[in-house]
Amino acid sequence: MGITSMSAQAAPLKLKPLTTGKKRSVVILGAGISGLTSAYELSRAGYDVTVLEASHRAGGRNFTARHGDFIDEFGNPQICKFDDKPYLYMNCGPARIPAVHTGLMHYCRELGVELMLFSNDNVNCYTQDDKAFDGRPIRIREYRADIRGYMSELLEKTMASSAHLDAPFDEVDLDKMVQFVKDYGDLGSDLKYHGSERAGLVSGGFVSEPVIKDPLRFADLMKSSYWAGALNFAEGLDQAPAMLTPVGGMDHVVKGFLKHVKDKISLKAQVQKVWLEDKGVEVSYLHDGVNKKIKADYCINCIPTHIMAGIENNFPTEYAEVLGKIQRGKLFKIGFQAKERFWEKEGIYNGITWTSQDINQIWYPEHSPMRPKGIFLGAYTWDPAVGERFAQMSNQQRMNEAIRQGSKIHPDYAKYVETGITVCWERMNNMMGCSSQWPEDIRDKFALLQAPAGNRHYMVGDQISHHSGWQEGAIRSAWHALEDIEQKEGMLSAREAS
Amino acid sequence: MGITSMSAQAAPLKLKPLTTGKKRSVVILGAGISGLTSAYELSRAGYDVTVLEASHRAGGRNFTARHGDFIDEFGNPQICKFDDKPYLYMNCGPARIPAVHTGLMHYCRELGVELMLFSNDNVNCYTQDDKAFDGRPIRIREYRADIRGYMSELLEKTMASSAHLDAPFDEVDLDKMVQFVKDYGDLGSDLKYHGSERAGLVSGGFVSEPVIKDPLRFADLMKSSYWAGALNFAEGLDQAPAMLTPVGGMDHVVKGFLKHVKDKISLKAQVQKVWLEDKGVEVSYLHDGVNKKIKADYCINCIPTHIMAGIENNFPTEYAEVLGKIQRGKLFKIGFQAKERFWEKEGIYNGITWTSQDINQIWYPEHSPMRPKGIFLGAYTWDPAVGERFAQMSNQQRMNEAIRQGSKIHPDYAKYVETGITVCWERMNNMMGCSSQWPEDIRDKFALLQAPAGNRHYMVGDQISHHSGWQEGAIRSAWHALEDIEQKEGMLSAREAS
Repeated sequence: MGITSMSAQAAPLKLKPLTTGKKRSVVILGAGISGLTSAYELSRAGYDVTVLEASHRAGGRNFTARHGDFIDEFGNPQICKFDDKPYLYMNCGPARIPAVHTGLMHYCRELGVELMLFSNDNVNCYTQDDKAFDGRPIRIREYRADIRGYMSELLEKTMASSAHLDAPFDEVDLDKMVQFVKDYGDLGSDLKYHGSERAGLVSGGFVSEPVIKDPLRFADLMKSSYWAGALNFAEGLDQAPAMLTPVGGMDHVVKGFLKHVKDKISLKAQVQKVWLEDKGVEVSYLHDGVNKKIKADYCINCIPTHIMAGIENNFPTEYAEVLGKIQRGKLFKIGFQAKERFWEKEGIYNGITWTSQDINQIWYPEHSPMRPKGIFLGAYTWDPAVGERFAQMSNQQRMNEAIRQGSKIHPDYAKYVETGITVCWERMNNMMGCSSQWPEDIRDKFALLQAPAGNRHYMVGDQISHHSGWQEGAIRSAWHALEDIEQKEGMLSAREAS
Repeated sequence: MGITSMSAQAAPLKLKPLTTGKKRSVVILGAGISGLTSAYELSRAGYDVTVLEASHRAGGRNFTARHGDFIDEFGNPQICKFDDKPYLYMNCGPARIPAVHTGLMHYCRELGVELMLFSNDNVNCYTQDDKAFDGRPIRIREYRADIRGYMSELLEKTMASSAHLDAPFDEVDLDKMVQFVKDYGDLGSDLKYHGSERAGLVSGGFVSEPVIKDPLRFADLMKSSYWAGALNFAEGLDQAPAMLTPVGGMDHVVKGFLKHVKDKISLKAQVQKVWLEDKGVEVSYLHDGVNKKIKADYCINCIPTHIMAGIENNFPTEYAEVLGKIQRGKLFKIGFQAKERFWEKEGIYNGITWTSQDINQIWYPEHSPMRPKGIFLGAYTWDPAVGERFAQMSNQQRMNEAIRQGSKIHPDYAKYVETGITVCWERMNNMMGCSSQWPEDIRDKFALLQAPAGNRHYMVGDQISHHSGWQEGAIRSAWHALEDIEQKEGMLSAREAS
């Protein structure tokens, strides 16, 4: 495609405005983040934009549920019964923005989306595994301090008994390395781990001497699955601090775009045919019961690939085949309204509890501490087998199951729950799944789908990015297509002028 | 003293109200957090309370500087010239509340202090050491991922070459431990560290394949002083997440107390004599140029011990001697107003940059991202030698020096700075120092100072706690004294009734 690939630190897209008087039209299929980005940028650059959105609302998976909102699941439609308060909401899709997602951060700034800190990491939360500590929840503080201590003790011990350390470790003075390891694990003067204040106190620390906890047993720590993934989760590129989130809900990003492009969007407009033509694209769709057609110079197609594969089209054979092979994630979340913020009684004011049970995570809200009520996530799993299990339950069964599992962590959990919603992305209307997953055997076709079909039709979205499931992937994919259109328009206008 | 020592998870103090009709008076010396706590609790319980505060304001070291505020340093009085906006402030003293400080959290709830997340930990910030990487700043993200990788590689290597692992490590299957270490450090399939996405990307990751950075050299990482302290800072009991802070400034805690006890406080009332008597305490003080005296049944004395040691008193000899031996910290901070939030251009939205230079830390505000201006800390050091060096400079010299040092991290730093204030706690009027420091040879006198002198006079404050420098220490010390008073009053009234 001849477009310079954008680095992680890329400057935001700046489309050159169309030459005065020039008319170019673009039809955008889907008003999720990639569609909204495209509509916003193209409108500003003078393109004539139409957005067709199949659902009753814009935003796609960027969906914040509040009092009265409709959760459009096949066979399980729900109306959100959270109380009508600005701090009682659930981010059903994306809920956090890593500061390194500079495209989305750029739009938050440009669209006036107010941000606040979010954190994945709260050591006051718990880890719970049925196979360790008799299933008792353990504070992450304790787990982390102790495993760090043991690891450091072991490292010092094996280092000391090694005859010779190879490169690159032989470059550094051994005493210095021992000091490093001692600090890292908070080892005693005997270089053994005897527990640490980091793990929390049994008593004292203020008006009497602090008494530290006995460390947990190493073998027990290793029995827990917490070390495999969760322990290192917040070290990840997209999960490490600083993380941010919009004040009042993630859909403030959507609202920011809508301030500029709302009038370009037709809701409840279901695409039925996408036809590549010599000088453009024709799209047929059903809008409020009426069959309609639109022709445009370009088409930005944000329809989930597996849905698009079943819509009539005349795409090149291989392109169409790949569309049909991309899989989708089965992310599942439950949001509960609690009549009291019971987690705060346990010293928890945000963050994530991890469990080996199907619910996988409990999230405590990062905002509005000490309010009388709160919305927390009672389940957040992306394991497809688990998503499938929850998908096959009724709404009430899902909630009962989450409460049953969560009670291993918060024993009196049930008595606080007033109402809840379940969000099963694989069954959400017009979505039928979460992030795209490219099977190994079609990975080499990424560039094929990233390139335009018939020179005028672009598949776009986080689904056509290396950051599927992230809004930043959607934005960058849109930018990629828009830059290609701009380049073409530059070439075309040069040709017209000659 | 017969009081049960309070554990870290202690329930908040609940004083029993005085028996109806009973009159008891308490004079409280100092309106910092311990004095305010005492005044609030005693008033509620029906005691007749008078608070004498030497300074022009309540709060003590809990001091948030805004437009027009007076920074009362000996010989260097300053008026804060920050613009008059609610998001332009500097917490000159405490700036963060660990969720485990349940006493302070209790008061935030009770006094309606709105809280938000704070975090010490932002891997987008820098570490800079003149002795490593030619003095170049390194993103913490990179430092942390790489040192973790190397440490894991070394652990795996030495583990594999050890003939036998002793207890407790021999209880766990070696393959499992290898997998743990591989995950921990993000090692390659060859169990060596070749860099990690955790450290950040050179390019790609969105519309093209991610390209990870080459790891930094192990020997260079170890040359940096970052591993000694700073790397493990946010693992500490009082620094680990969740951390919180009041929306709009730490002094909202003070304002919360003042809603209830403002009318009990005499400002600019300087204590000149504290005299223990048979049935109470007499305090002489200078108030607006007039010598005054007050007698009370009890005295809660929050005056810094080293200042109190120079005020006329009739304390028991050893008690008075110990007072004079407690040292004070020399914490030093600079707050700058930047005309643009230059840190955000570097992807930083909160957190701490660490440097080996005197300024020690640069803090970026955790609140109000994307506003046009911002207040950041250009220096935050608690090294007494450094505090002393800054103390001996004029205000302008301090700021120039901070800008010079900070420019090694943010090269164009100077051009953004509009105005600043410097806060040198050892020279702040009525304070003359920061947290108390008990020399080794008087540690065993802690209980002596914690107990009342003459049965009626209590030294109180974070200075008489195992958490000096923390508001929680102040609160718990106050509670400790108040419980003793309550116990006495219970005994007295029993005696009176008999």
